[in-house]
Amino acid sequence: MDEDGQPGQRPAVDGARENCGLMGAFGVPDAASVVFRGLFALQHRGQEGAGIVASDGQRVQSIKGMGLLADVFARRPAGGLPGTLAIGHVRYSTTGSTRIQNVQPLVVECVDGIWAVAHNGNLVNAADLRRAYQQAGAIFQTSTDSEVLVHLLADPMFRNRPRRVERALGELRGAFAFLLLTRDSVMAARDPYGFRPLSIGRLGDGIVFASESCAIEQVGAEPVRDVLPGELVVAEAKGIRSSSFCEPVTGALGQCIFEQVYFARPDSRLFGESVHAVRSALGERLAAESPADADVVIPIPDSGNCAALGFARASGIPLDYGFIRNHYVGRTFIMPETDQREGSVDLKLALVPSAVRGRRVIVVDDSIVRGTTVRRRVGALRRAGATEVHLRIACPPIRHPCHFGIDFPSRTELVAARLGIEEIADFVGADSLAYLSHEGLLGCVTQPGDYCSGCMTGRYPIDVAGERSKQDLEHGSPVTDA
Amino acid sequence: MDEDGQPGQRPAVDGARENCGLMGAFGVPDAASVVFRGLFALQHRGQEGAGIVASDGQRVQSIKGMGLLADVFARRPAGGLPGTLAIGHVRYSTTGSTRIQNVQPLVVECVDGIWAVAHNGNLVNAADLRRAYQQAGAIFQTSTDSEVLVHLLADPMFRNRPRRVERALGELRGAFAFLLLTRDSVMAARDPYGFRPLSIGRLGDGIVFASESCAIEQVGAEPVRDVLPGELVVAEAKGIRSSSFCEPVTGALGQCIFEQVYFARPDSRLFGESVHAVRSALGERLAAESPADADVVIPIPDSGNCAALGFARASGIPLDYGFIRNHYVGRTFIMPETDQREGSVDLKLALVPSAVRGRRVIVVDDSIVRGTTVRRRVGALRRAGATEVHLRIACPPIRHPCHFGIDFPSRTELVAARLGIEEIADFVGADSLAYLSHEGLLGCVTQPGDYCSGCMTGRYPIDVAGERSKQDLEHGSPVTDA
Amino acid sequence: MDEDGQPGQRPAVDGARENCGLMGAFGVPDAASVVFRGLFALQHRGQEGAGIVASDGQRVQSIKGMGLLADVFARRPAGGLPGTLAIGHVRYSTTGSTRIQNVQPLVVECVDGIWAVAHNGNLVNAADLRRAYQQAGAIFQTSTDSEVLVHLLADPMFRNRPRRVERALGELRGAFAFLLLTRDSVMAARDPYGFRPLSIGRLGDGIVFASESCAIEQVGAEPVRDVLPGELVVAEAKGIRSSSFCEPVTGALGQCIFEQVYFARPDSRLFGESVHAVRSALGERLAAESPADADVVIPIPDSGNCAALGFARASGIPLDYGFIRNHYVGRTFIMPETDQREGSVDLKLALVPSAVRGRRVIVVDDSIVRGTTVRRRVGALRRAGATEVHLRIACPPIRHPCHFGIDFPSRTELVAARLGIEEIADFVGADSLAYLSHEGLLGCVTQPGDYCSGCMTGRYPIDVAGERSKQDLEHGSPVTDA
Amino acid sequence: MDEDGQPGQRPAVDGARENCGLMGAFGVPDAASVVFRGLFALQHRGQEGAGIVASDGQRVQSIKGMGLLADVFARRPAGGLPGTLAIGHVRYSTTGSTRIQNVQPLVVECVDGIWAVAHNGNLVNAADLRRAYQQAGAIFQTSTDSEVLVHLLADPMFRNRPRRVERALGELRGAFAFLLLTRDSVMAARDPYGFRPLSIGRLGDGIVFASESCAIEQVGAEPVRDVLPGELVVAEAKGIRSSSFCEPVTGALGQCIFEQVYFARPDSRLFGESVHAVRSALGERLAAESPADADVVIPIPDSGNCAALGFARASGIPLDYGFIRNHYVGRTFIMPETDQREGSVDLKLALVPSAVRGRRVIVVDDSIVRGTTVRRRVGALRRAGATEVHLRIACPPIRHPCHFGIDFPSRTELVAARLGIEEIADFVGADSLAYLSHEGLLGCVTQPGDYCSGCMTGRYPIDVAGERSKQDLEHGSPVTDA
Repeated sequence: MDEDGQPGQRPAVDGARENCGLMGAFGVPDAASVVFRGLFALQHRGQEGAGIVASDGQRVQSIKGMGLLADVFARRPAGGLPGTLAIGHVRYSTTGSTRIQNVQPLVVECVDGIWAVAHNGNLVNAADLRRAYQQAGAIFQTSTDSEVLVHLLADPMFRNRPRRVERALGELRGAFAFLLLTRDSVMAARDPYGFRPLSIGRLGDGIVFASESCAIEQVGAEPVRDVLPGELVVAEAKGIRSSSFCEPVTGALGQCIFEQVYFARPDSRLFGESVHAVRSALGERLAAESPADADVVIPIPDSGNCAALGFARASGIPLDYGFIRNHYVGRTFIMPETDQREGSVDLKLALVPSAVRGRRVIVVDDSIVRGTTVRRRVGALRRAGATEVHLRIACPPIRHPCHFGIDFPSRTELVAARLGIEEIADFVGADSLAYLSHEGLLGCVTQPGDYCSGCMTGRYPIDVAGERSKQDLEHGSPVTDA
Repeated sequence: MDEDGQPGQRPAVDGARENCGLMGAFGVPDAASVVFRGLFALQHRGQEGAGIVASDGQRVQSIKGMGLLADVFARRPAGGLPGTLAIGHVRYSTTGSTRIQNVQPLVVECVDGIWAVAHNGNLVNAADLRRAYQQAGAIFQTSTDSEVLVHLLADPMFRNRPRRVERALGELRGAFAFLLLTRDSVMAARDPYGFRPLSIGRLGDGIVFASESCAIEQVGAEPVRDVLPGELVVAEAKGIRSSSFCEPVTGALGQCIFEQVYFARPDSRLFGESVHAVRSALGERLAAESPADADVVIPIPDSGNCAALGFARASGIPLDYGFIRNHYVGRTFIMPETDQREGSVDLKLALVPSAVRGRRVIVVDDSIVRGTTVRRRVGALRRAGATEVHLRIACPPIRHPCHFGIDFPSRTELVAARLGIEEIADFVGADSLAYLSHEGLLGCVTQPGDYCSGCMTGRYPIDVAGERSKQDLEHGSPVTDA
Repeated sequence: MDEDGQPGQRPAVDGARENCGLMGAFGVPDAASVVFRGLFALQHRGQEGAGIVASDGQRVQSIKGMGLLADVFARRPAGGLPGTLAIGHVRYSTTGSTRIQNVQPLVVECVDGIWAVAHNGNLVNAADLRRAYQQAGAIFQTSTDSEVLVHLLADPMFRNRPRRVERALGELRGAFAFLLLTRDSVMAARDPYGFRPLSIGRLGDGIVFASESCAIEQVGAEPVRDVLPGELVVAEAKGIRSSSFCEPVTGALGQCIFEQVYFARPDSRLFGESVHAVRSALGERLAAESPADADVVIPIPDSGNCAALGFARASGIPLDYGFIRNHYVGRTFIMPETDQREGSVDLKLALVPSAVRGRRVIVVDDSIVRGTTVRRRVGALRRAGATEVHLRIACPPIRHPCHFGIDFPSRTELVAARLGIEEIADFVGADSLAYLSHEGLLGCVTQPGDYCSGCMTGRYPIDVAGERSKQDLEHGSPVTDA
Repeated sequence: MDEDGQPGQRPAVDGARENCGLMGAFGVPDAASVVFRGLFALQHRGQEGAGIVASDGQRVQSIKGMGLLADVFARRPAGGLPGTLAIGHVRYSTTGSTRIQNVQPLVVECVDGIWAVAHNGNLVNAADLRRAYQQAGAIFQTSTDSEVLVHLLADPMFRNRPRRVERALGELRGAFAFLLLTRDSVMAARDPYGFRPLSIGRLGDGIVFASESCAIEQVGAEPVRDVLPGELVVAEAKGIRSSSFCEPVTGALGQCIFEQVYFARPDSRLFGESVHAVRSALGERLAAESPADADVVIPIPDSGNCAALGFARASGIPLDYGFIRNHYVGRTFIMPETDQREGSVDLKLALVPSAVRGRRVIVVDDSIVRGTTVRRRVGALRRAGATEVHLRIACPPIRHPCHFGIDFPSRTELVAARLGIEEIADFVGADSLAYLSHEGLLGCVTQPGDYCSGCMTGRYPIDVAGERSKQDLEHGSPVTDA
C-alpha cells in the first residue's frame, strides 16, 4: 500500500465508507476488559476513535473517546465497566472530520430500553432511510449508519412485531457487520452478501464476536465459525439462537477481497482462509506471472512482507530486508511530519544500503493507491545504488471506488484510474512494473466467486446508486466540529 | 451557603434540576469569541461542561467538552469558530454523572436543517413528552430537556405549520430559558412564569442574550431589557421580532428568589434589580429583625459578603474580615481534599485570628443547606478565641426541593427540613441563630409577588407532579458513563 | 497593588530578587505531606515552581516541578515521600525565564552526603562568591543563591571545621531565609538584618518552620516564635539547638515593610504583628492623613481590602463592594488574556454598577507600581457613573528597587519614579490621589526602626553595590531554557 | 533478545552502564532541528529522556525532558532553538530511577562560559574522580559521568593550560563517546579503545556527529568516517581540527560486539561494517555450525530478523513469518500490561497459526538474556501446533556483566550464567538449542581483534575494578526522585 502512516491518515468522508473493527462478548466475566483486549488486536482497523459499552443486566455503561484505544482507556480503564456482556468498536476515519458524537458504539434510549450499536461497513440506502425518518419527525445527532439502524429498531412498525431486529436489518442495503447490545443481550449480524467479516468464538461458557480471528485468539478464545451472510445471532440468558433476516443471496457473495490483500492482519483467518497464506500465494503467483531477472527481492514493510516472501520462494531469488521500519513513528501525538518532498529522507522506513547497493532489486508491495509514496521508495532505492528496480504489486490495479466500507481516495487521486501501467512505471521511476492479474488474484482464494473485487473491476454485487446520493448529502452536511 | 467548593460539587441528579448559564450573539463579528467571553462571566452558573455552537450562515460548527470553560477551549479557541451568530452554555451538574453527550448546546439535524439548543431550567412535563415521543418511535441520546424541545420542533405536527417554534414552546411546562440557533438565526425564549433569568443586550449593530447582565457588560454590550416571561425573540437577517407563545400568566410570576439570594453574581441586574443591592438590603433587614449584641460582623466569603455589609451598616457594628479565601483552592485538576473532620483546618477559608480573638462575633451567610460546613466555620471561630458566635442567615430556612432548576440536596439532607432553629443552632455550635423572615426576604425586592420561594415555603407556582415522575425515570435510567 | 494576575506574572530577573515561600518539618510523621499542606498556604508567595525534599534518615527523595504546587504534586503526591523530616519551597519568578534547574530545594551531593537547600531572599554578594568559586574550578548548574551556599558548605575551608554551617552562613551578605535538610537534620537560618520572615511552630513532638504563620496554622501546628535575625536553628535527633552565626546587628533591623503592606497573607503574624491589623491601621491612618468628601469607600480586591476597611471605619464613610473578583481567572493553564486596552472590560475584576452609580467614590489600594492597572480601574468606575473618584494608597510611593527579594519592575517602569503625585493622579484619571506618608506607614507597626523601607526611601540597611554587579552577570548569562 | 518491550524497560542502575544515543551539528542552519531529526533515528538507543542544547554564538538554550523524544519536543519544538550549532542526547535507563536532573546534555556554567556535555558509555574511574573532586569541595547534582568530565574541564589544573580538553579527556578510563558544546564550538571524542560508536558526516558546509550512521543518513548528510579511538574533533568557526588525547592503544581495541549483535539499527554502518550484513552472516554461520532438520525458519521480530534471513539462506530451509508484531504496543503512555503468565497470549507478538501448524520449526533470535520471554514464545509455537521447535541463537551465551555501557541484568538473572545449554533448552521448552560459537561470532566481522566481547567471555580490554566501586557508591546513593 503506497501510503504513509496509518490508513486513518488518508482522507475520508466522515461516516461514509468507513472500515472499522468490532468486538463483543456475552456471558464472559469482566466482559469489557475482554472486549478491550480484543479491540487492541483490531487497532489496525481504526485509530480515530474507540468505545466500549457494557451491561451488568441492570445498568448500561460506556466509555468512548477520540484517538487510539489505549489512550481512550488510559484514565478510565475498561475494567471499570461492570458486567458480563459488552460490545466495542474502533473507528477508522479522517482525523479532521471525526466528531466525538460519531464515535461508536452509539447508545440510545428507546421506549423499551437501551440499545447500543456498533457498525462496520457502509449502507447504500442510509441516505434514503435517514431522509424518510427525518420527514416523519426524527432528529439525527450523528452521521453514522448505526443511527439509521436504531431508528428502524425504535420504529413502532418493527418494534411491536415479532422478529423486530430481523425486520429492521432487512431494510438495510449495503455492507454491514453489526454488534448490538441491550441490557441483557448481545447480537451480531452480517449483511446478506457478507461484505465485511465477523466471526464467532467460544470463551469459557460465554461467546465472543470479532471482526477478525486474531482478536478471538488474543483474548484466549477459540474460533468457532463466521457469522453467516444474512444471519442474526442473538446471545441472551436463555441461550444463543440464530436466525436469518433475508432470503439467501442467489449467486455469488460479496466478501471483500481487499481485506485479504491489505486490510486484515496476516495472523487472522478471514472468510475461511489464512490471510498470511493468501498473501504468500499472491506473491508466488505474481512471481510466476511476472518474473524479473534480479538479485534480490525486497518487501515494502509491512504491507508487502507476505507477498515478497511468496515471490522469493517461487522465484528462487533471495529475500532481503531493504527497508527498516522506525517503530517510533506514530507513537506520539505530535509527530515530526514526514517530509513529502522527493529526494527527502523517510522517517518511517529507513533504507539498508548494504542490502541494495549494486543490486538488481525486485520490490514487492500489496497495492498502489496514489503512487506517490512508492515513487519515493523507488527513488530511495536508486539513490542507495540499486542498479535496477522492478516493482511488483500483488493485486490488480485499483481503479474504482469502494461503496462497501474501504476508504479509497477519489478516482482522480487513484493513479491507476488515470494512467496506464507503463505510465505508472515511468511515474514511480521503476525499470519495470507488473500487477497481479485478476485471475491470479482470485486463483489464490478458495471460493473466488464469493468475493467482491469492485475496486479493481468496477463491477459491484449490488446497485450502488443510493450510496452516491448519500455521499452528496454528507458532503453538504453543515454540522461539523471545530 | 454552607457548602465547600463550587456548587457543582454538590450531589445532583444528572439532567434534572440543573442551573446553567446561557450566552448568545447575533449579527456580531467573531460571535463565538463574544459568547466565550460572556460565558466566562457566567462560569459560576456551571463548571461541569461548556460548549459553543456558531454559524457563518452556511456551516454550523461546535466545540464542546467537560470541565471549565477555559479548559474546554484551551486547545481549540472559540475564535476558530467562524461567523456572526453563536450560542453557548455552561453546565452545572454533578461531576460523577455528567456525560459528554449531555454537554450543551445540543446540535441535531432535522429534515429542514440544523438546530442547536441550550437550556437553563427544568421542565416538569419532560418525562411525559419524552415517553410520548419514544412511544412513537423516537430515540433519545441525552437526558437533557433540550432534546425534548428538538423533538417537538422536528415533529411534523409543528414543523409544517406557522409559528412552529411558539407552538413547540407552548407544549412545555416548567422552568426554562432557551437559546436556539439555526444556520441563520438565533432565538431566545423564557417560560411563562419567568423562573429563570434571560436578558437582552445591544452590541454594535448586533444583539446578545445572556442569563445575567454581568455577561452582557463583560462583552462590552449595553443591557437593554429582559426577555419577557412567555416571550420568544427571534434574531435573523431580516430583523428582530418578538412574539408571545402563551397566554400571559394571570397572577404572580415565578422568578427564582434564590438567584437573588445566592446564585447570581452580585454585579448583575436580575429580574429588574441589582443583586448586590438586594443582598445588602437582606443584611440590613436581618439586622433589624434579629440584632445581636456583639463587637464585630464577619461575612462568610463570598456568599455572605453583601449581606454582612448591610448587616454592619444597619446595626452600626463594625465589619471585619475574619475569613480569608485561599484563591488557589480549586485551581488545579487534582486538589488536596478539604479535610472534613471537625477541628481540622480549612484549606479554602483561613481564619484571621486577630480579627476574632476575644470578640463577640456575628457571622453572616446567605443560606444554610446541610449545616455541616457552617458548623466547621463556627468551630474555627471559637478555637480562634471568639467569645460569642451569633449566626445570622440572610434568607428563611430552605426546607423543600426546587423543581425549577436549583439543585438542592434531598430533603433528608436539608438540615432545616429535619431540625428546628434551636436545634440547628446547637448543631452548628452557635450561641444564637436567626434566619431572615419570609416577609423580610420579600420586602427586599420590588415585585415580591413575582417571585417563587417554593424551596422555603413548599408552595410552587405550578403543579410539579409530572416532575416527580421524571425524577423516578431518571434515577432508574440504565445509561451512564463510567 | 495595581497589577493584574499573580505577582509572578510581573517581569523578573530569574534568580535575582525573588520572593518565595519556605516550609519545613522535623520529627513529624508524614513530614512531606505536612510540608505540602503548609506550602499550600504559602502559594501566594510563588506560583512558578514548587518542590519538596524529604528524608527517612536513610534516603533523601525529592519531587519538583514547574507551576502551581497542586499541579506539581498532582500525579506524584507528597505522601509518597517517606520520613519524618522534609523541607519545601514555592518559587516566585517570571514564567518566561524560570528553568526547571532553578526550582528549589536544590539537592546536591558533597563528600559528606546530601544537602538540600531552599532559599527566600537575595544575596548581594552572590555574584562575587560565585565568581570566586568558579575561578577555583567550580561549576554552576543554576542561577540560584542556594547554589552559592552549598559551595560554601562543601568548601574544605568550612567543611572540616567546627560550626561549619554558621561559618558558611557568615560569608553571605544580603537577605536570606534558608531551610536546609541533610539525611538526619533540618536547619533554619535568617540573615542578620531579618529582611525576610521565618517562623517556628510546634507540631506534636516535632517542629515546623514556615515563612508565614498562616502555614503553621494551616498544618494544625502552634506558632512559637520567629527565627531570630542572625540565628541558626538545627533540629536533629539529639534535640534542637540554636546558635548565632554573626555579631548582632547594631542599630536597626531590615525587616521588609512591603511584606506587611502587600506580600504576606492577612491572616499571618509577621515580625510580631498581625498583618491584617497592620493593614487596617494603614487605612485608618490614611483616612486621617488624607480624607476625602465622598459617599462610599471601595477597596480594590484583594490587595486593598484591609486598608479600605480601616479607611471606612476611621472616616465614617460606608464601605461598599464596587469590584467583584472572578474566581475563575487564573484557574486554567491557558487563559483568555486580560484585554489591556483602556476602556476594555476587565475579566478579573467586575464592576458592580449599583454600588458606584451617582456616587462620589474613594478607592483604596495598598500600593501603585506601574499605574496602568489602577488607571483602568478608575476608568471603569467613571464609566459606571461614579461622579468623583478619589484614589487613596496605603503606603508611600515606591520609587526604588528592592535588593532584598521583592521583585519590582525597573525604575523606568515605576510610575512614582517618573511622575509627581499630581501627574500620577492625572495619569490614572483620579480627581484626587493621596499616598500614606512614610511616618504614617511606620506609625502602624510597633517597631518602626526595625523595618527596611528602601523601596520607598532609597536608603537600604546594607551596601548593595555587589548586588548590582550580580544583576549584570545574570542579565548577560547565556544559558536559558527555551 | 528475549525481552519484552523496549530495552529501557529492563532494570538498570541509574547513571551506570547506560547506552545512549548522541547527535550533534556544527555550521548547519537550524541545527537543533537537524539534531532532533537525527535523534529520532537513534530513539532505539534510549527512550527514557531526551534533550537538545543549541547555540547561536551568543546564547545557549536547551530543551530537556523525560520520555520519548517526540513527546519531549511536542510542546516546545526543537525549531524554537536558534543557531547553527547543537548537540542532543537520548537516554536509556530504568524508568523507575531516571531523574530529570540526569537527562542530558548536562549544561553548566564555569568561569569561562557555558559547557554542555552529552555522554554515551561508562567510565570505570568515575567514582574515583567524583570522590576526589568532592574531597576538594565540589558538589554534584547528577549521577552522570558527564558531570565528572565538566569538573575536569573546569579544574584550573586543566583550564589554564593548552590542550585543556585533551588533558581532561586523558584522565578518563572506560567507555565513552562524548559530544561537547560551547557557545561557539562543538566537539566529539571517543575513548582510546573505541568501545562506543561515534561517526562523522558532512551536511552542506557543516559537519554532523552521530552514534550511528543511520542518523547521519536520516538528516540527509553524507557519512564520512568514524571519530577514531582516542581522537578529539573540534568544530569551530576557524575550521575543524583533530587531535589525539592519548597514546594509541597497543593491541586490540574494545569495540562493542553487542552493538553488532543487537543494539544498533540494521541500516547503520558501525565500526566499518554494515550491521545488517554482519547479522545476516551470523545467521549463515549459525546454520553451518548448528543445523537442524526442519520445515521452516522463523525469526523473533525484530531482533532475530536478519539472522533468520541468513540462516534460511544458508540452510535452504524456507523462511516464514510466524510472529506478527503489534505496532500499537508501546504507542501510548499507559499500556495494557503484557500478561507474563505462561500460556497467556502475547499482546506484542501475535502468532500466525498457518505458518506453524504441523511444522518442524527453527526459531532464530539474536541473544538470550533471562530466558523467560523466549520461553513464552516457544510455548506459543507449540500450542499453535509446531511439531518440533529448534531454538538457534546468533551469538554466544551472555554470562558476564558489561562495564562499558550495555545494561544487562545482574548475573543471577542471566540464564546462561546459571544454567548449562541443555538446561536452558529444557527451561525454554525447545527440542534443541544452539548458540553461535565465539569463533563463529568473530568470524563475521572483519577486524575480530578489535572487538570487546567481555559479556560473553568475562575478559575485558581494561581493568574494571574501579567500576565496581562506582556501582557500590551508586547503589548506596541516598538521592532519588520519587
